[in-house]
Amino acid sequence: MTGRPGATPRASQAVAEEIRAALAAKAKPRGSLGYLEELAVRICAIRGQRLRALRCVAVVAAADHGVSDEGVSAYPAEVTEQMVTAFIRGEAAISVLARQTKTELCVVDCGVRRRVNDPAVVSRWVAAGTKNAALEAAMTPAQAEQTLAAGRAFAADLATQGYDLIAVGEMGIGNSTAAAGLVAALLDLPAEAACGPGTGLDQAGVDHKVATVARMLRRSTSQRTGPREALAELGGFEIGFLAGLMLGAADHRLVVLLDGYITGSAALLAAQLEPSAADVLIAAHRSPEPGHRHVLEALALRPLLDLDMRLGEASGAALAIPLAKASIAVLEEMATFSEAGVSDSGR
Amino acid sequence: MTGRPGATPRASQAVAEEIRAALAAKAKPRGSLGYLEELAVRICAIRGQRLRALRCVAVVAAADHGVSDEGVSAYPAEVTEQMVTAFIRGEAAISVLARQTKTELCVVDCGVRRRVNDPAVVSRWVAAGTKNAALEAAMTPAQAEQTLAAGRAFAADLATQGYDLIAVGEMGIGNSTAAAGLVAALLDLPAEAACGPGTGLDQAGVDHKVATVARMLRRSTSQRTGPREALAELGGFEIGFLAGLMLGAADHRLVVLLDGYITGSAALLAAQLEPSAADVLIAAHRSPEPGHRHVLEALALRPLLDLDMRLGEASGAALAIPLAKASIAVLEEMATFSEAGVSDSGR
Repeated sequence: MTGRPGATPRASQAVAEEIRAALAAKAKPRGSLGYLEELAVRICAIRGQRLRALRCVAVVAAADHGVSDEGVSAYPAEVTEQMVTAFIRGEAAISVLARQTKTELCVVDCGVRRRVNDPAVVSRWVAAGTKNAALEAAMTPAQAEQTLAAGRAFAADLATQGYDLIAVGEMGIGNSTAAAGLVAALLDLPAEAACGPGTGLDQAGVDHKVATVARMLRRSTSQRTGPREALAELGGFEIGFLAGLMLGAADHRLVVLLDGYITGSAALLAAQLEPSAADVLIAAHRSPEPGHRHVLEALALRPLLDLDMRLGEASGAALAIPLAKASIAVLEEMATFSEAGVSDSGR
Repeated sequence: MTGRPGATPRASQAVAEEIRAALAAKAKPRGSLGYLEELAVRICAIRGQRLRALRCVAVVAAADHGVSDEGVSAYPAEVTEQMVTAFIRGEAAISVLARQTKTELCVVDCGVRRRVNDPAVVSRWVAAGTKNAALEAAMTPAQAEQTLAAGRAFAADLATQGYDLIAVGEMGIGNSTAAAGLVAALLDLPAEAACGPGTGLDQAGVDHKVATVARMLRRSTSQRTGPREALAELGGFEIGFLAGLMLGAADHRLVVLLDGYITGSAALLAAQLEPSAADVLIAAHRSPEPGHRHVLEALALRPLLDLDMRLGEASGAALAIPLAKASIAVLEEMATFSEAGVSDSGR
């Protein structure tokens, strides 16, 4: 792996320098904790201050996709709702990983077909799934605004609650097709470059998905005059919500820990809407979904983990939380050479 | 990254199959947690049973090296003792990371020049550092046996205490030179392929280290008739102790989570002494030290992390502990498709 965790906001250069100097004084060879040190630098630079601890929350946004009618997923659409229920019951992978990493889990219904009526689910419901983007616009321009605004406002709430970092994830049968459409549209890539097996398509399934995304792109060409229009044409509600959440995170200098390909498509969207959103992103992991590398390259992000994970639900982001916390703990708790009475080589 | 976490002991194939089947039934696409699933499989296969939780301990073995007199390190020899003191005072990187990951930390003095007299340090002291291996054998055959046996017995103690996993680390100024000598000897590599900057040499320093390792190898050629003799000729005490610990871990089916290059040299030694030791190893991370990739390839290990860490002290191993614990938590706590009422695609 090469690269850096991402560009440092100009306003935060002073904080970044302060953290680098603090880490250089610690009783260890300069830079010997490698990327973990850069992680602490980036987190503090985003927050605009030297942190003493890191308060984390995981936000999983769920919605359905009309394009699932085209048979682009290995799973039926009702699985979206079933998984939302599993999340809040504590039974899903993200439930386990959130508990394991002592991270609060927020599940948001952005547009599940059968609206989830449970007080444990945050409702930011826009509609009963998007329309089939292979045939018509996934959502109206007003719905696109609504879901972006809901995400942005949600980030403001999280800032008020004192969180430093939002690990983002998603659930939505068909959403790797919507994400592929968005990535292809936003990065001007052919459908083939943006499509992969998602949660488990075979080669024939991937071929059909490529054809479907190509149809989505052809149908909507004239309508996609910018990222906002791309969201409305291609979907989905949870992707728009997460993009809005990232815009709000930038407003409040919260760190966004990205999961895999679908949250990556939301990050691309956010960064094209407002470039400052890119300043608050950290990539938790590299997904085997082929399009993900285009997203990471476009955002100049180096992932923390590379474990062939392709589940979504914020599972990869949650697994990276202990690394983020460890980077801040090293900064806060390690002694300097002089405090520890250790001879320094100066290197 | 490619490859597998390592070969599965034949006797554990049944456990591995049981864990794979259990993970396949969980409410997520088959294999979608990627390498995390293989990690759970390997941990349980090593332990010979399906685990419900993972009890972890970090063992950091320290010793001095006569070869440091050749000026092969960026740091003076007294830093070994100073860092041991920092470990037990809770001030060093591994102190922070062990706390952060709720891992008990065991510091073992295997041969620090000025013996550390503190009840918080476990004494398995052999001598006041090894001899200078560029000039003479690092230790006697009896000392090599002593430190190997001490490590093996220590693993037996840890097994009795109920641990499942030992994260191994080391501290010893000059020990990346001893490790380079061992790796070159055990894998029949030239000195250049086994040497790198260690904790911070510049190019001239690396060149001098290569020349020193080449001298160590030439001097000892006729004496190195096997891995035991290589340890005696090239050192060091902490490397021998850790190799013995790995042999003992294999005796008791404990998981060994390797740190970087120096623990890797101990793993090579253990695997050449008794091939079954290789069956209990997991690589926590990939070090930027160039020789480390030869070690990982020789042991057929795929690292969990790749963060340019090169500190030692078990710092990389400690950072991988949350991943190991998460893999077992997924196995223990996640619901199956039928338990969660989620429609299964069968893929």
